[in-house]
Amino acid sequence: MDATEFRKRGKEMVDYIADYIETIHKRPVYPDVEPGYLRCLIPESAPQEPESFEDVFKDIEKIIMPGVTHWNSPYFFAYFPVAHSFPALLADILSGGIGCMGFSWAASPACTELETVMLDWLGKMINLPEEFLAGRDGEGGGVIQGSASEATLVSLLAARTKTVRRFQLENPELTESDIMGRLVAYASDMAHCSVERAALIGGVKMKNIPSDDKFTARGSALQKAVDEDKAAGLIPFFFCATLGTTACCSFDKLLELGPICNKENIWLHIDAAYAGSSFICPEFRYLLNGVEYANSLNFNPHKWLLINFDCSAMWVKKRSDLIGAFKLDPLYLQHNHQESGTFHWQIPLGRRFRSLKMWFVFRMYGVKGLQEHIRQHVKLSHEFEQLVLQDERFEICSEVMLGLVCFRLKGSNELNEELLKNINDTKKIHLVPCQLREKFVLRFAICSRTVESNHVQLAWQLITKLATGLLKAWEQKDIKN
Amino acid sequence: MDATEFRKRGKEMVDYIADYIETIHKRPVYPDVEPGYLRCLIPESAPQEPESFEDVFKDIEKIIMPGVTHWNSPYFFAYFPVAHSFPALLADILSGGIGCMGFSWAASPACTELETVMLDWLGKMINLPEEFLAGRDGEGGGVIQGSASEATLVSLLAARTKTVRRFQLENPELTESDIMGRLVAYASDMAHCSVERAALIGGVKMKNIPSDDKFTARGSALQKAVDEDKAAGLIPFFFCATLGTTACCSFDKLLELGPICNKENIWLHIDAAYAGSSFICPEFRYLLNGVEYANSLNFNPHKWLLINFDCSAMWVKKRSDLIGAFKLDPLYLQHNHQESGTFHWQIPLGRRFRSLKMWFVFRMYGVKGLQEHIRQHVKLSHEFEQLVLQDERFEICSEVMLGLVCFRLKGSNELNEELLKNINDTKKIHLVPCQLREKFVLRFAICSRTVESNHVQLAWQLITKLATGLLKAWEQKDIKN
Repeated sequence: MDATEFRKRGKEMVDYIADYIETIHKRPVYPDVEPGYLRCLIPESAPQEPESFEDVFKDIEKIIMPGVTHWNSPYFFAYFPVAHSFPALLADILSGGIGCMGFSWAASPACTELETVMLDWLGKMINLPEEFLAGRDGEGGGVIQGSASEATLVSLLAARTKTVRRFQLENPELTESDIMGRLVAYASDMAHCSVERAALIGGVKMKNIPSDDKFTARGSALQKAVDEDKAAGLIPFFFCATLGTTACCSFDKLLELGPICNKENIWLHIDAAYAGSSFICPEFRYLLNGVEYANSLNFNPHKWLLINFDCSAMWVKKRSDLIGAFKLDPLYLQHNHQESGTFHWQIPLGRRFRSLKMWFVFRMYGVKGLQEHIRQHVKLSHEFEQLVLQDERFEICSEVMLGLVCFRLKGSNELNEELLKNINDTKKIHLVPCQLREKFVLRFAICSRTVESNHVQLAWQLITKLATGLLKAWEQKDIKN
Repeated sequence: MDATEFRKRGKEMVDYIADYIETIHKRPVYPDVEPGYLRCLIPESAPQEPESFEDVFKDIEKIIMPGVTHWNSPYFFAYFPVAHSFPALLADILSGGIGCMGFSWAASPACTELETVMLDWLGKMINLPEEFLAGRDGEGGGVIQGSASEATLVSLLAARTKTVRRFQLENPELTESDIMGRLVAYASDMAHCSVERAALIGGVKMKNIPSDDKFTARGSALQKAVDEDKAAGLIPFFFCATLGTTACCSFDKLLELGPICNKENIWLHIDAAYAGSSFICPEFRYLLNGVEYANSLNFNPHKWLLINFDCSAMWVKKRSDLIGAFKLDPLYLQHNHQESGTFHWQIPLGRRFRSLKMWFVFRMYGVKGLQEHIRQHVKLSHEFEQLVLQDERFEICSEVMLGLVCFRLKGSNELNEELLKNINDTKKIHLVPCQLREKFVLRFAICSRTVESNHVQLAWQLITKLATGLLKAWEQKDIKN
């Protein structure tokens, strides 16, 4: 395919995407296929001779689309949103077209520099303390990671390196593995599984801090764990606070936890993967209060800020902590402006020109446009909450703060499991569950950029209709038994 | 921006990219900017109100392009190639448009399944042993990682988990950190720095195996290190063999190293990041002989197989080894077809629909088209090698196997450093250096999809012209002194 054909086919693809998004609400949100469906539809091996674009293109509807879960459908209420916007798509076409590798300043100055400036823009949008910004000569700054999991891992590793060095300085007789064996990381029992995984990768112990009845980690619980572990000879070194847990969007109490971390020399990392985007609205910014105690902070604009995946924003107060944890300098990566790159901030070496997406989205929406998007989602979740509250067969299971509603039928877990199954089997809307203590709970997350009140209302009608049928069936089962 | 405007702007962007690629040879390959150039050109903060697409679009040439290192210019001979092709760009537009998250089978069946099948296709293209393929019920299989660094890290972590478990079973009195403190990983002294970094992250020791005079790690050197370390009470557990080193594209001797690894219970990972793509040509496949001894294998189609970044292909013989190293199952990620996903294979949780790029490229080029691309690059590197050999002021510094030529002026390192600086200062071509033992060496890598004989000839003319001037200047300096 030459440039001339690319012009033609690229435009056809742009139209296909526009058509897809304009009509996505007509597709079943969840696919009707069984595992292994795709292998039967395509050849065992790659073709020897080239095929035409037409051949490939017609297979999109035939082979791919039947197996797609439509994350951008207004009837998709599962997990958390994945960002999707036209300005981000345009920027990604540009990023692919330029096709540079931004692993160091010299490898592509524009890529490295735009990233640093965009992270400053975004940091200012959420009113981060000055120390987290790079500015012209700050010690802090931001970087784009691929996912919140990577940000958590990178911060845990930086904390590990820092703590091991400190202990070795104070106790030169200790080996690195002696110290590693005593390190202990903490997170709320509501934290994302990627925190436990980061500790697993980093080869350190990890303990859960029991959250309170609002699913919030409190200072007292952390202090208790730290005191016990210190008494047992362990070295507390890392705490990951969650702002907006995956299960129910609860918030750890930063203002209690932060001072403890600072006093105990514990690296405080904030994982605000989903909720972070909301902090661009002044009315939600209080949720980030206490960030001044943190060493690092992360949230995912690719979730809720209309910047397509992957774009996970991470800031640190001291860049040198990250660089210290990773620095290795082979000659083929050295150049005159070594410190300007972001190579030492992340796990992979290569990186796409991802900051273009931020630049396009921030400029074409403006801060006000993005705030509007957040507010619309929060409004819709409260609308759904009201619907639930008005039906006494149901209960709300945790406080609705942003765009997520946790709810269930009053009754057994089995009942709710069956309700969820019935809902998802319709393939008209899609939800996933969570576990809150002993309760099996349904999560209703406002996700799509295009979701509106009528979609939420339709979803609720479907849920209540299925609930009515289910309750009737269970009643009859009870009578029979 | 609505779908209607996206149709218009998307097509303008497609044309911009086509124009960019068609005229890329006219741009200086390396940018003429100083660190910090970009911050001065854009506002301190994001705009409150939306800006128009036109405003953003005109800033691409004004702000971005002046700072871009043009990796896809036919005058770019630095690092290794980064893949760039029109079919891959089309697939990426589709991937962004669908915008699904493929972290589990249920999250998007098509995304998960196409990936598995594409890795089988690619595995067959390089004639991998059956054990590495997923097929319908194999124990092995492939996955797309973001980069070779991640593949190395993931395999090292799997090896670590496996070894720790084995030792704990045999010696229940040992703690995990006792064992971790005794683990030792190996790689050639020519291996990529990401191997050392993986060991750093995994918290294990790492030792370099001295390579021979062809920059190749040999069985005898590995066996010597293993014997010494075992005698000292250490536990050898991981060896990363490099096929096509970054510095000079040398190849470790798999047929010697493999049996040692198998005998000593050492996980053998093969890093063929650059060279792996060449194995689709039968005449280069012998370079992979010995792969049957390996536990895992990785190469980067995003380097040399025309599939845009990121697409790093990794295979393992036993999927269960990777899954065992990472498995964590929160309820919000559970579903009926748990084992079909790839979540447990990688560091990040989220993932784009990257296999679409493989599908489009394999089909629109066909295996023959891709072989042609590889052969054209190898032919051009030998053409450059001949030019160097015909000029007795220069020397070739390592065997030219694929698309990389390592060369230098006979003389001091300082002389060659100055030559490289003079070359890059012209911004007409771009090269990076490497260190081979005590020698500072210039790397000439055939990179662009569109590079042809005339570009190589022009590059050589420029290099010899600058060398002549430089040698004259040095002679005069010598006379003066």
